[in-house]
Amino acid sequence: MPTIRVEMFEGRTPEQKRELVKALTEACEKTLGSPPESVDVLLFDIPKSQWSTAGVLWSERQ
Amino acid sequence: MPTIRVEMFEGRTPEQKRELVKALTEACEKTLGSPPESVDVLLFDIPKSQWSTAGVLWSERQ
Amino acid sequence: MPTIRVEMFEGRTPEQKRELVKALTEACEKTLGSPPESVDVLLFDIPKSQWSTAGVLWSERQ
Amino acid sequence: MPTIRVEMFEGRTPEQKRELVKALTEACEKTLGSPPESVDVLLFDIPKSQWSTAGVLWSERQ
Amino acid sequence: MPTIRVEMFEGRTPEQKRELVKALTEACEKTLGSPPESVDVLLFDIPKSQWSTAGVLWSERQ
Amino acid sequence: MPTIRVEMFEGRTPEQKRELVKALTEACEKTLGSPPESVDVLLFDIPKSQWSTAGVLWSERQ
Repeated sequence: MPTIRVEMFEGRTPEQKRELVKALTEACEKTLGSPPESVDVLLFDIPKSQWSTAGVLWSERQ
Repeated sequence: MPTIRVEMFEGRTPEQKRELVKALTEACEKTLGSPPESVDVLLFDIPKSQWSTAGVLWSERQ
Repeated sequence: MPTIRVEMFEGRTPEQKRELVKALTEACEKTLGSPPESVDVLLFDIPKSQWSTAGVLWSERQ
Repeated sequence: MPTIRVEMFEGRTPEQKRELVKALTEACEKTLGSPPESVDVLLFDIPKSQWSTAGVLWSERQ
Repeated sequence: MPTIRVEMFEGRTPEQKRELVKALTEACEKTLGSPPESVDVLLFDIPKSQWSTAGVLWSERQ
Repeated sequence: MPTIRVEMFEGRTPEQKRELVKALTEACEKTLGSPPESVDVLLFDIPKSQWSTAGVLWSERQ
């Protein structure tokens, strides 16, 4: 607690993910005072063919 | 806003997904008055081996 | 299956919600061929004080 | 209803998953009185490279 | 890990919830071998006016 | 995209929430290069009576 879920387009590098979870955890420490070991982050890579905005899948936009 | 998540069995065709996200977005426009560009839809394809009803995985039913 | 989750700002009327779940269910019937009794919809009313875009809560925008 | 979602590290065997969904469903029957056919369980296998605690991905711990 | 989310109709007693989280946690211990302190359970009470099946909210069924 | 969900114990102040969503959004900008207007954050306040660890609700711990 807190538990953070991130849904984002697939394609981030391992290095970006490593930095992302570190930065999100630090954000909780600084603003909520959460002990870092209480912060879980789960990343979900969503293909563009599974996410739409305005009724159009991102895989079908140019 | 709104953000819609759909969990369904895997196996739908790209054409079905394209039509689904379009129809779900239109449903929000018509009933809530949402501008279409404010509607996000995320699709999650769930294998039958990961979903159970009544304690039995769908991959193990006949 | 499918199961649909909708997160939207709080404040919709019961009539809008009734129409929304009907329209979302029909969207699944028409595009996926889902039997209506297999379609569950869950609505989550999110206060503007709990949703941010671009780092600003919607309760603090004018 | 109820609908249960389980997020766990990937790597469980099909046998473990079969037993898990059975046991979770029975837990709802015994404690809530839920008819088993009303209980859905969805399993999500999360790679260790997608889950962090204390700001460190589990794939990077030794 | 694992993290379990339960969506169910509102109205369960505190005693039922206490027994439910205990039973779900034991299910993970027995079938996955999870140490109990690694199992988190989150309960979400859903009003019948926010959940539909077959396009009809449960608050409107008789 | 990305969309972030945070589940945390209820009781944070409006000021803490304002700072939290700002910090989480900046974390995405810095590590993923996300334009801030593409980052949505949803906060879920969970009562201690709805969250358990090791099979015991947090409302029942001393």
